[in-house]
Amino acid sequence: MVGASPIQSREYATRLASCVLVGVALWFSPRPIGIDASGWQVLAVFSAVIASFLLRPLPMGPATLIGLVVLAATGTLPLATVLAGYGKPVVWLVVAAFLIAGAVKTSGLGRRIALTLVATLGRSTIGLGYAFCGSELLLGPVVPSNTARGGGIMSPIVSSVATALDSHPRKGAQRAGEYLVLVAAHANLITAAMFLTGMAANALVSEAASKHLGIEFTWLDWALAGSVPGLAGLLLLPLFLRWLAKPELVDTRAAQTTARASLRALGAWSGAQKVTAFVFVLLIALWTTNFLHGMGSALVALIGVCVLFLSRTYQWRDAVRESGAWDTLAWLGGLLSMAEALRDEGVVEWFRDGMAANVSGMGGVTVAIVLALIYFYSMYGFSMLTGHIAALAAAFFSVAAAAGAPPYLMVALLAAFSNLCGCVTNYSTGPVVIYFGLGYIPAARWFRIGFLVSLFHMVIWLGLGLVWWKVLGWW
Amino acid sequence: MVGASPIQSREYATRLASCVLVGVALWFSPRPIGIDASGWQVLAVFSAVIASFLLRPLPMGPATLIGLVVLAATGTLPLATVLAGYGKPVVWLVVAAFLIAGAVKTSGLGRRIALTLVATLGRSTIGLGYAFCGSELLLGPVVPSNTARGGGIMSPIVSSVATALDSHPRKGAQRAGEYLVLVAAHANLITAAMFLTGMAANALVSEAASKHLGIEFTWLDWALAGSVPGLAGLLLLPLFLRWLAKPELVDTRAAQTTARASLRALGAWSGAQKVTAFVFVLLIALWTTNFLHGMGSALVALIGVCVLFLSRTYQWRDAVRESGAWDTLAWLGGLLSMAEALRDEGVVEWFRDGMAANVSGMGGVTVAIVLALIYFYSMYGFSMLTGHIAALAAAFFSVAAAAGAPPYLMVALLAAFSNLCGCVTNYSTGPVVIYFGLGYIPAARWFRIGFLVSLFHMVIWLGLGLVWWKVLGWW
Repeated sequence: MVGASPIQSREYATRLASCVLVGVALWFSPRPIGIDASGWQVLAVFSAVIASFLLRPLPMGPATLIGLVVLAATGTLPLATVLAGYGKPVVWLVVAAFLIAGAVKTSGLGRRIALTLVATLGRSTIGLGYAFCGSELLLGPVVPSNTARGGGIMSPIVSSVATALDSHPRKGAQRAGEYLVLVAAHANLITAAMFLTGMAANALVSEAASKHLGIEFTWLDWALAGSVPGLAGLLLLPLFLRWLAKPELVDTRAAQTTARASLRALGAWSGAQKVTAFVFVLLIALWTTNFLHGMGSALVALIGVCVLFLSRTYQWRDAVRESGAWDTLAWLGGLLSMAEALRDEGVVEWFRDGMAANVSGMGGVTVAIVLALIYFYSMYGFSMLTGHIAALAAAFFSVAAAAGAPPYLMVALLAAFSNLCGCVTNYSTGPVVIYFGLGYIPAARWFRIGFLVSLFHMVIWLGLGLVWWKVLGWW
Repeated sequence: MVGASPIQSREYATRLASCVLVGVALWFSPRPIGIDASGWQVLAVFSAVIASFLLRPLPMGPATLIGLVVLAATGTLPLATVLAGYGKPVVWLVVAAFLIAGAVKTSGLGRRIALTLVATLGRSTIGLGYAFCGSELLLGPVVPSNTARGGGIMSPIVSSVATALDSHPRKGAQRAGEYLVLVAAHANLITAAMFLTGMAANALVSEAASKHLGIEFTWLDWALAGSVPGLAGLLLLPLFLRWLAKPELVDTRAAQTTARASLRALGAWSGAQKVTAFVFVLLIALWTTNFLHGMGSALVALIGVCVLFLSRTYQWRDAVRESGAWDTLAWLGGLLSMAEALRDEGVVEWFRDGMAANVSGMGGVTVAIVLALIYFYSMYGFSMLTGHIAALAAAFFSVAAAAGAPPYLMVALLAAFSNLCGCVTNYSTGPVVIYFGLGYIPAARWFRIGFLVSLFHMVIWLGLGLVWWKVLGWW
């Protein structure tokens, strides 16, 4: 999400002043016992940055940079410390995945995959739903911006399929469009939940798990955690939504025909598409065989990028213009530096000790579930998944640790819920904003269905998910 | 220099194979005593990367990334170590300066400055020469890509001024164009030599000085070192070149008139231009008063960027599309990681001990001058300033340290010569390529004049420069 629409000067000033006020108020308020001055100052600046994610006077990149500069200019932390996040492997995992996603998009591979599935499965409305779920599942592992995946690759196809079926926002929305948009939007969140590389801010969850629960939740662990409940969710979503928002149309062979024509227009597989598909398979192979070669997720992703460059499938001039990669680098690296400082300065510890009293006496698994539920539904108070993760994930992990929740279970829950919780509003994350923006579903209906989808997720992830994680021995 | 022109597959394969061969040959050759396996491997990979800077199978960014990935994938260094360079303040100094340069360009401030000087000083050919030198001097401190400065801001103005004087590459080149292009190109190299933020790779010189001579050569030190000889160079350059390449035209009021018309078309100062000019002044003020506030060069540059974002003078969506910034981040950060590894693994030490024998017995100042001369003229063997700096600066500093050369003198010499040496060829750095590409001067003539300009630099920087650095107490 680069460059939000310009907002009026007065509104800008109000929003900016509110964020500054949050920071200044905290900075100068009496600090609690057990937390030193610099820790309190980091918390103040971090809070102002998170406030800016909610109020959006500026995009996340500059907001984060400003936070870092304030910390360095006030002497709270050395500049080298606040910039250290930019050298973290997990940041470069995400940058690398963005560049691979760029190749998936510019080579036309993403479009080819989605069109092939539509042409194959798209005989009926529900078949189209499965085609979208399948495309999301295939693209999920290597297109780490769920906005690029949902908004960039999928939504144009979803929109053109609906149009081909003569279903338009203000005319015949219920014929097919409403249903298809809902399936595509919620499928995007499920695949975001299934892979460490399914959403940019998932890296923050993984890093927080490492710092606060002492767990290296690798790409493979994440995929393992999400596999069974995620596949179940994708299998049941088209059925569940057909029940909630039944499409009038059943026969959708018109869309299939259009997709076939588009595929013909794409022509034969290009060299770039073949190499990108190969890199795709290589990455999944290396990510899932970490125990054999010991190379971490980030190194594997970077190897994939190098193959793309060496084969000249992807040009450096395109890479440096892949603005999403550099946008994410700027905010993700900065947030990691701040998260590390909050931990090093004892702020998270202090929060944890304060919260632990509230959950003492509960069993570890109960604590994990209660925390996960609070985490999930607190999304109603946030305007974006990334802000929600940045604000809460580390704190929730540290409380869980203090309360004796099983660590792998806790990470599995928050890893999934960090993304699934995007179902509750129509502005939670880029692709949801874009799908909602297609105009097929009024806001109130989006909210109502979103809440029901959240219950659907609970049944699957707290039902089947818990069983699966028990099988894995995680609790 | 993003995205070099595509090269043929066969040529690409040959060039790439040559670089790989350099690396593989070194990797498997018997390593000298006193250097361990990982140090030798880092040197092999580093050499292959430098070879790629010369042969250019790929741009610098991917070449550097591939080097890092090879180091990590072979287990030579941990991934976190090879990525640590991306968190270094000096890298972010350059990124910040690129973003400020973006604002200078998009706001039209750079163009306004150059046009104002042309309109004011441009009565005669030599006056135009001074207008270009003055513009370069004003833009030098905050436009850290000498390519963006020379190629992006200045060359279109130089070219349009020559055209307005009816001087064209193949018709009347000697009327004015030849002279003006030479002044502009060589002035660009002088201002690149005068400021730490005058050229992107200057950060490598500063970092190498810190590592190998134990000197924090700050923005202020650099500006101080370059001030007297740099100003003398800019004052004398238009005269010296008039002697070498006398323009036929003297009266250039036609160009003045055109510049005035362009200025009128620019209209009144826009808000963005005013704020950018303010940031400009703020940066110079803070960089030169470091002793008062203690904030480093990088922090100051980042403060400037934050002011641009907060005032909404510069939009984040433009920043993430400032591809030069992210290109430079990719290669500069990676090169710094490798440079650090070469030092940590004892490779530089080993080279230094080997070289020190050759310069033993000379006085420290003599060593400094001899090394500087070798460094300068070795540019004939390189195709780009950055590659030259990356390959040699650290090694030369360490030899100088071993031979007892006065450290500040040594840094001042290499800081300047790293950029001035670009005068010797017509392909040494982006703006030279662009100015040469305007077509006013044949290659042989460019080389001949370039060599004479190198002598001009020697007289100034080894004459006046040494006196000035003596006054500063640096030797």
